[in-house]
Amino acid sequence: MKIAIINGPNLNLLGIREPEIYGNKTFEAFFEALKTEFKTVELIYFQSNHEGALIDKIQELGFSFDGIILNAGAYTHTSIAIADAISAITTPVVEVHLSNVFKREEFRHHSYISPVAIGTIGGFGLQSYTLAIQSFI
Amino acid sequence: MKIAIINGPNLNLLGIREPEIYGNKTFEAFFEALKTEFKTVELIYFQSNHEGALIDKIQELGFSFDGIILNAGAYTHTSIAIADAISAITTPVVEVHLSNVFKREEFRHHSYISPVAIGTIGGFGLQSYTLAIQSFI
Amino acid sequence: MKIAIINGPNLNLLGIREPEIYGNKTFEAFFEALKTEFKTVELIYFQSNHEGALIDKIQELGFSFDGIILNAGAYTHTSIAIADAISAITTPVVEVHLSNVFKREEFRHHSYISPVAIGTIGGFGLQSYTLAIQSFI
Amino acid sequence: MKIAIINGPNLNLLGIREPEIYGNKTFEAFFEALKTEFKTVELIYFQSNHEGALIDKIQELGFSFDGIILNAGAYTHTSIAIADAISAITTPVVEVHLSNVFKREEFRHHSYISPVAIGTIGGFGLQSYTLAIQSFI
Amino acid sequence: MKIAIINGPNLNLLGIREPEIYGNKTFEAFFEALKTEFKTVELIYFQSNHEGALIDKIQELGFSFDGIILNAGAYTHTSIAIADAISAITTPVVEVHLSNVFKREEFRHHSYISPVAIGTIGGFGLQSYTLAIQSFI
Amino acid sequence: MKIAIINGPNLNLLGIREPEIYGNKTFEAFFEALKTEFKTVELIYFQSNHEGALIDKIQELGFSFDGIILNAGAYTHTSIAIADAISAITTPVVEVHLSNVFKREEFRHHSYISPVAIGTIGGFGLQSYTLAIQSFI
Amino acid sequence: MKIAIINGPNLNLLGIREPEIYGNKTFEAFFEALKTEFKTVELIYFQSNHEGALIDKIQELGFSFDGIILNAGAYTHTSIAIADAISAITTPVVEVHLSNVFKREEFRHHSYISPVAIGTIGGFGLQSYTLAIQSFI
Amino acid sequence: MKIAIINGPNLNLLGIREPEIYGNKTFEAFFEALKTEFKTVELIYFQSNHEGALIDKIQELGFSFDGIILNAGAYTHTSIAIADAISAITTPVVEVHLSNVFKREEFRHHSYISPVAIGTIGGFGLQSYTLAIQSFI
Amino acid sequence: MKIAIINGPNLNLLGIREPEIYGNKTFEAFFEALKTEFKTVELIYFQSNHEGALIDKIQELGFSFDGIILNAGAYTHTSIAIADAISAITTPVVEVHLSNVFKREEFRHHSYISPVAIGTIGGFGLQSYTLAIQSFI
Amino acid sequence: MKIAIINGPNLNLLGIREPEIYGNKTFEAFFEALKTEFKTVELIYFQSNHEGALIDKIQELGFSFDGIILNAGAYTHTSIAIADAISAITTPVVEVHLSNVFKREEFRHHSYISPVAIGTIGGFGLQSYTLAIQSFI
Amino acid sequence: MKIAIINGPNLNLLGIREPEIYGNKTFEAFFEALKTEFKTVELIYFQSNHEGALIDKIQELGFSFDGIILNAGAYTHTSIAIADAISAITTPVVEVHLSNVFKREEFRHHSYISPVAIGTIGGFGLQSYTLAIQSFI
Amino acid sequence: MKIAIINGPNLNLLGIREPEIYGNKTFEAFFEALKTEFKTVELIYFQSNHEGALIDKIQELGFSFDGIILNAGAYTHTSIAIADAISAITTPVVEVHLSNVFKREEFRHHSYISPVAIGTIGGFGLQSYTLAIQSFI
Repeated sequence: MKIAIINGPNLNLLGIREPEIYGNKTFEAFFEALKTEFKTVELIYFQSNHEGALIDKIQELGFSFDGIILNAGAYTHTSIAIADAISAITTPVVEVHLSNVFKREEFRHHSYISPVAIGTIGGFGLQSYTLAIQSFI
Repeated sequence: MKIAIINGPNLNLLGIREPEIYGNKTFEAFFEALKTEFKTVELIYFQSNHEGALIDKIQELGFSFDGIILNAGAYTHTSIAIADAISAITTPVVEVHLSNVFKREEFRHHSYISPVAIGTIGGFGLQSYTLAIQSFI
Repeated sequence: MKIAIINGPNLNLLGIREPEIYGNKTFEAFFEALKTEFKTVELIYFQSNHEGALIDKIQELGFSFDGIILNAGAYTHTSIAIADAISAITTPVVEVHLSNVFKREEFRHHSYISPVAIGTIGGFGLQSYTLAIQSFI
Repeated sequence: MKIAIINGPNLNLLGIREPEIYGNKTFEAFFEALKTEFKTVELIYFQSNHEGALIDKIQELGFSFDGIILNAGAYTHTSIAIADAISAITTPVVEVHLSNVFKREEFRHHSYISPVAIGTIGGFGLQSYTLAIQSFI
Repeated sequence: MKIAIINGPNLNLLGIREPEIYGNKTFEAFFEALKTEFKTVELIYFQSNHEGALIDKIQELGFSFDGIILNAGAYTHTSIAIADAISAITTPVVEVHLSNVFKREEFRHHSYISPVAIGTIGGFGLQSYTLAIQSFI
Repeated sequence: MKIAIINGPNLNLLGIREPEIYGNKTFEAFFEALKTEFKTVELIYFQSNHEGALIDKIQELGFSFDGIILNAGAYTHTSIAIADAISAITTPVVEVHLSNVFKREEFRHHSYISPVAIGTIGGFGLQSYTLAIQSFI
Repeated sequence: MKIAIINGPNLNLLGIREPEIYGNKTFEAFFEALKTEFKTVELIYFQSNHEGALIDKIQELGFSFDGIILNAGAYTHTSIAIADAISAITTPVVEVHLSNVFKREEFRHHSYISPVAIGTIGGFGLQSYTLAIQSFI
Repeated sequence: MKIAIINGPNLNLLGIREPEIYGNKTFEAFFEALKTEFKTVELIYFQSNHEGALIDKIQELGFSFDGIILNAGAYTHTSIAIADAISAITTPVVEVHLSNVFKREEFRHHSYISPVAIGTIGGFGLQSYTLAIQSFI
Repeated sequence: MKIAIINGPNLNLLGIREPEIYGNKTFEAFFEALKTEFKTVELIYFQSNHEGALIDKIQELGFSFDGIILNAGAYTHTSIAIADAISAITTPVVEVHLSNVFKREEFRHHSYISPVAIGTIGGFGLQSYTLAIQSFI
Repeated sequence: MKIAIINGPNLNLLGIREPEIYGNKTFEAFFEALKTEFKTVELIYFQSNHEGALIDKIQELGFSFDGIILNAGAYTHTSIAIADAISAITTPVVEVHLSNVFKREEFRHHSYISPVAIGTIGGFGLQSYTLAIQSFI
Repeated sequence: MKIAIINGPNLNLLGIREPEIYGNKTFEAFFEALKTEFKTVELIYFQSNHEGALIDKIQELGFSFDGIILNAGAYTHTSIAIADAISAITTPVVEVHLSNVFKREEFRHHSYISPVAIGTIGGFGLQSYTLAIQSFI
Repeated sequence: MKIAIINGPNLNLLGIREPEIYGNKTFEAFFEALKTEFKTVELIYFQSNHEGALIDKIQELGFSFDGIILNAGAYTHTSIAIADAISAITTPVVEVHLSNVFKREEFRHHSYISPVAIGTIGGFGLQSYTLAIQSFI
């Protein structure tokens, strides 16, 4: 089973930005732990701040992988192009969010990703990714 | 660990309504399977079509249970009173949905529950409940 | 042929409230007249101010009756849960209103019931119910 | 008793358009059946695709007829002028629709006719007209 | 000086409709009085319930008359086509209304005619027409 | 003089929920103090989390009491049915709120109760009820 | 017959501001011409940039004058207080505008004055005032 | 204890305007009665039609008085500047209204004052002021 | 191959209105050129300012022609009835516009025709019609 | 004559995605056919999923090419930056769409490109590009 | 070079209101420092809580000064009249704000001043005024 | 002191696009002049049409520079991702605009950057950058 985790803009700052709040664990470190936890799953990780690069990657993986876990960050709320890429591929996509976006600004309440994802998991911090992997197993 | 599953209106029809689509498994049968799967968790289940009865139950359990898994059904989109009950209690609440509400009518895209829940899991069918239990463990 | 009339909140005050305007005929009295008029139809009547009780009743009757005539009163404009109950059952539902809701406040112009009912009859006073029974025959 | 049925734009295509769905019964044929069914009522029928012609007819009949049954078709949603004509005359008008407009596009949910009609009957196919005649008797 | 008065839908009912309120003076009678009052002006009068007929007339007169006084009735609020006709011609158009439309329903507060008319006079009853003629002199 | 205080959803948690903020005085204790303060008034108290139960009670008391003081809690913002019950009865209703709802979320700024109440008192904590009783005397 | 012309903010700049467009005739000069033209009418003129001063003046004149001609300038679109003053007095008010406000910014299309004025005259330049006086005669 | 009553635009017309409806008691007369009723309270009264004058007065009193009772009249719905003045001072402000503003036009349903006042009392006529004084004692 | 060009309101003024801008070529002259250019196509042309006449013509041709090229002019933005006629017929319809409607007023950005046409061509002046014919070949 | 075709996000999947629906012809193959059809035109083709890369290309070609045919895909509805690039260059741009966007989701009905393009052609599948080239010749 | 600084409502409380936050420096003291810093510029300062007084001052200075620096305070968001005054004068106006208004309530995000000012400087505290003076030099 | 100027899409065309209007000075030339004017400041300049590249750069500089001056061009109005990057870094950001965006299209009036910038300077042409540097000194 091959599952890809794709992270959008600013998620590369995890562990660097405000470590007293978010902790000093980078997503890379968390990803290593995930690989240890899910030994039978082939996991890959990709992050970019570029909307186009995220689309390129979704297209590249979307006809061969068994699942994509996508945290599109701020592009969640603005990118019809990423949503179209998800519609075009055959791999099922699960949308995840670290925080509960509904506790934040009004413009974060709408997601272009949700209607084209098979499901959404949000608000559980890094555990959101773990639950998403479990949903595919 | 004590976890309650609370289901809102019309979810009692699962397994009865359109069995060729939803299968003929009732939520009660699924709940028995859940109890078998999560033996170390004390699970209880409650369903009502009455908004007030859901609030009564949330208040009753909300100061002693370790987690509440709430699928408020249609009240998700109309009940500020249920949201207020969640805010008032100390037990954390996870919001679940069987279907991906964002693929349905516009008025199902807004949730009064989301901003007061710790997290949301939706679109995975009955597995949404399983993932919610895993989120508490 | 079995037809149920289900009335929502405040419709129990008919004949009591402002009799100089609405007359002093209660719905119960009108219902007796209806039974006399439609002898070949098995008619039953239910009223409640509780949204949940209306859903319970729609679910209870909705797989065996030939028709339900529903005047959901104010819940017409606020209850997605009642609309979902109508979608879930197999009995066809006709929506009725005593008054022409479009002559009243803006918030009464929208109905969650209309899209899931087979048809709507409104503005004819108690005759709305008579026409609804005729629509089933 | 004199009752007029007035049909708006495109309703002249009934029986011609998609006969496998709507049947091959024209409104003219249905109107003949109505006249047979309601022998004691003087029934007349008028159809036009012209908003102005509908207004002309409403004005012409609206001070002498006992009832007008109006299916304004698409003008239901756009014509304040027809609504004003209804307000100006003394004959009561019942609004009818073949289909349940609330199951169709958003812009068909609003009616300029409803607030000035005595009542509305919709969703019962051609039977909507029969019920409307019964409402006058 | 040649001035045309063009009246839209339902204005032909003036003097017939509710004479105890609007008086039993028809617009034709008022028009005769106007011709007497403004002897040096060549006045003509046209009324139609047909949007297309109003456009035809505006086009016909709009390159030779010195002024058009237009009360488009309900088409004021719905007809972009009449507004386009006014933009296309060279004769200046003054918009008049019998009543103060801003005291009536919300949908009567918007006028497609106002932005293309040279001016607007409303609320003075039949005197609105008199003032409009004076504005041209 | 007979005055009823009717409280809506979650107001039964007063004194239990967050006592360090709201104090540990329950509404029942406050109600006893009110009865002592207003000896000449016959005071009764009712609370429910059920919209339907609130309507039942308003109907029950609404033709014999001299005043109803209603804090409908979250139903203030969602219940047309409660507002209709108030319109149907003869007893005047004063709307009260503990907190200043206009300092809270946008959806709490609209009240279906306000237009049918004789007056509104909000923001004075439990004193809001005292002022409401004084308004009836 | 006593008629007052009341002008709101920035109308004191007429004749000073952009004289090549608006001409170098001040409103004072125009007012002198008006007094000459309408010898039998007692005309007074008042201008202020202060909303409160306009209200004071409307209140002062509003129980003894036969008519007020009000060009509230920008306050037309923002002042409920001026509209309330007009509602409170007994003198009828005609609203005038120099330009056609419907050709300008969207926020100038709404007038708080229009619903409480007896009529509106706009778009005729200074002639708007002349027509307003004629409407009173 | 020093309490100020500040009234906004057009409230100076109380007792003069439509005495058959509002009575012929001026606010000044009512204020004398208030002073008699609340002998231990130092009461002052100020009214102005000028938004700026109301702000000046709120600033002048707002650091030394124990309470301000503000009926901002129409400025309630349009003045952010008055609301800012209330935020800037240390004296608590109670908002009062004579009538139930929620029974009036839509634009009167919003108040800039409410979010910055400690509480709101409306709909009790002149008694609203009496209740406001009692709220401070 | 039989193709009809149908033009809506005010398009008959082409070549007459502002010839220094639009040129002095009438649509009739352009239509002659078209017939010369597309010799193998049977072309007919119809124009009307009447919404009803446009519907009549669409119905008349819509079951026998191979294509209809429709420039509905201002009715593009207001006529649900014309859109319904297009839905009812079997002939495919291409929507054309002379100008780029998206560079004009906001209310011209919405088209009722677009969702029921097979395609839209706009902004190319009279060439829009040429391209539309080419799309059918 | 030099004409560039620029395609936006996900259009590179043509021929790969759902070949049973869209056919298995890639855009590259179609482009070869176009070059054969329009031998006298110098045609180039560019596609990217990156908004920035599309802007770079528009800037690069926009001062030397005779025409740009742009299908911005999902960026049509979200990219002001691409629209600004079109405004900045001197080469005219024609907007094309494969499908009729007005038959799809609401958010696809708005285009930032339309107001800055010289014209729009949509709904004709790959033929849209052919018509666009013809518009330049 | 003559530059005027004009401050709107409540800005006179600077240094008095919450000195522990805003410091105890009054605007008058800051203004003295400004005069020292910009010796070659003739600086004057005006503050008022009255919208009308601000307009009077803008008109008075607006044909002779080289620049006006305007902080209209809350009137920024409500006063079309001040914006009209700025449009009417010849002196360029720079809009300044102490705080970043976009971090505050939604209703502070719209400015009537911005479209008529030459530029806007906001968020730099008292330094906003310094930068505004520098923009004129 | 290290300050970076970051320019968004299409700002690289300055000096090339319409030189008769914007002048033929490129931003690079202006940047050289800035470096000469502010010798004590270490200035760097970056421009990109790619949203992702702008985020990359903001992240790269945002933990070591003393200030960032950002003109995000069209991304100002559409990019939540850039705003999130600004929130994540520690370097303060000043938002600048060449033109007064409030004089342009409605969609340019909203900025995602403004709420996360310390301040905004707009409308002063290239001088906006100079003022922004001065704000940091």
